Amino acid sequence: MKLQLTLIVLFVVPAMGGASDCSISDVIAFNSLIKSTVASVLQNSEINCVDAPGKGASASCPADTTVVSCACGMGCGSWDIQSKTTCHCQCSNMDWTNARCCKIQIKS
Amino acid sequence: MKLQLTLIVLFVVPAMGGASDCSISDVIAFNSLIKSTVASVLQNSEINCVDAPGKGASASCPADTTVVSCACGMGCGSWDIQSKTTCHCQCSNMDWTNARCCKIQIKS
Amino acid sequence: MKLQLTLIVLFVVPAMGGASDCSISDVIAFNSLIKSTVASVLQNSEINCVDAPGKGASASCPADTTVVSCACGMGCGSWDIQSKTTCHCQCSNMDWTNARCCKIQIKS
Repeated sequence: MKLQLTLIVLFVVPAMGGASDCSISDVIAFNSLIKSTVASVLQNSEINCVDAPGKGASASCPADTTVVSCACGMGCGSWDIQSKTTCHCQCSNMDWTNARCCKIQIKS
Repeated sequence: MKLQLTLIVLFVVPAMGGASDCSISDVIAFNSLIKSTVASVLQNSEINCVDAPGKGASASCPADTTVVSCACGMGCGSWDIQSKTTCHCQCSNMDWTNARCCKIQIKS
Repeated sequence: MKLQLTLIVLFVVPAMGGASDCSISDVIAFNSLIKSTVASVLQNSEINCVDAPGKGASASCPADTTVVSCACGMGCGSWDIQSKTTCHCQCSNMDWTNARCCKIQIKS
């Protein structure tokens, strides 16, 4: 649908204005160029994660990251995510909590 | 290799048909345009995660997400992923299990 | 800024060489084509995770992946990431450790 719209814009609109000489083969070539560029950029992207340590029963991720998991002190494996950004360890008298915080980035 | 093929299609094919007037500078400009657009879209993408809670020893992620971690009841931190989509908590008499399920999306 | 530069390259540079006939509508159309292609490729990308099991208190992810969480034997939920790629379970006498290792890929 979007491609069809694009093709209409590419051929009908320029034809009305009489200002373009782009051919079918140009469009195919550009489309290939776009796809291979996008694919190479994606292959060059990665998931980058950092630790956000906290004392006590909670730890929060930086604003531009997403919390994907939590680790807790005292061997505790019971945790939940609060307010979308904060790890909360549920065992009593928790001494430390760590949030694992990730985002997508271009490989450096 | 793909770029070379694209360049051939861009210049040789149109030359045979005599229908195109695209110059080297056009191709360079389009390539820059593609790269900057791709980069800006990627910078505008994020990891989005939701919780999939379950009673007992297992919990499954929705079809379009990937399970990245599991949390278990009773302080348990021993878990494994079954069938690529399901968290399984290994301690006995498990009361609840939570799967953390993520996907890539454009920032809303 | 980048778009402006692109527009300058697209229109001023070709005008100097007199070799191009690309119109405003072409540029708009190509930009739309790029954006829709990028968006569709992104929607076709996913987070792919694998397990990296280890005996004892540590387990390491493959080089092209990112460790997002760890699971430990003996019910232990206390872990940390060492050297950016290795899960380390902190409870004593650990029998097994599992690293959850993820990357971005095009859907297969």
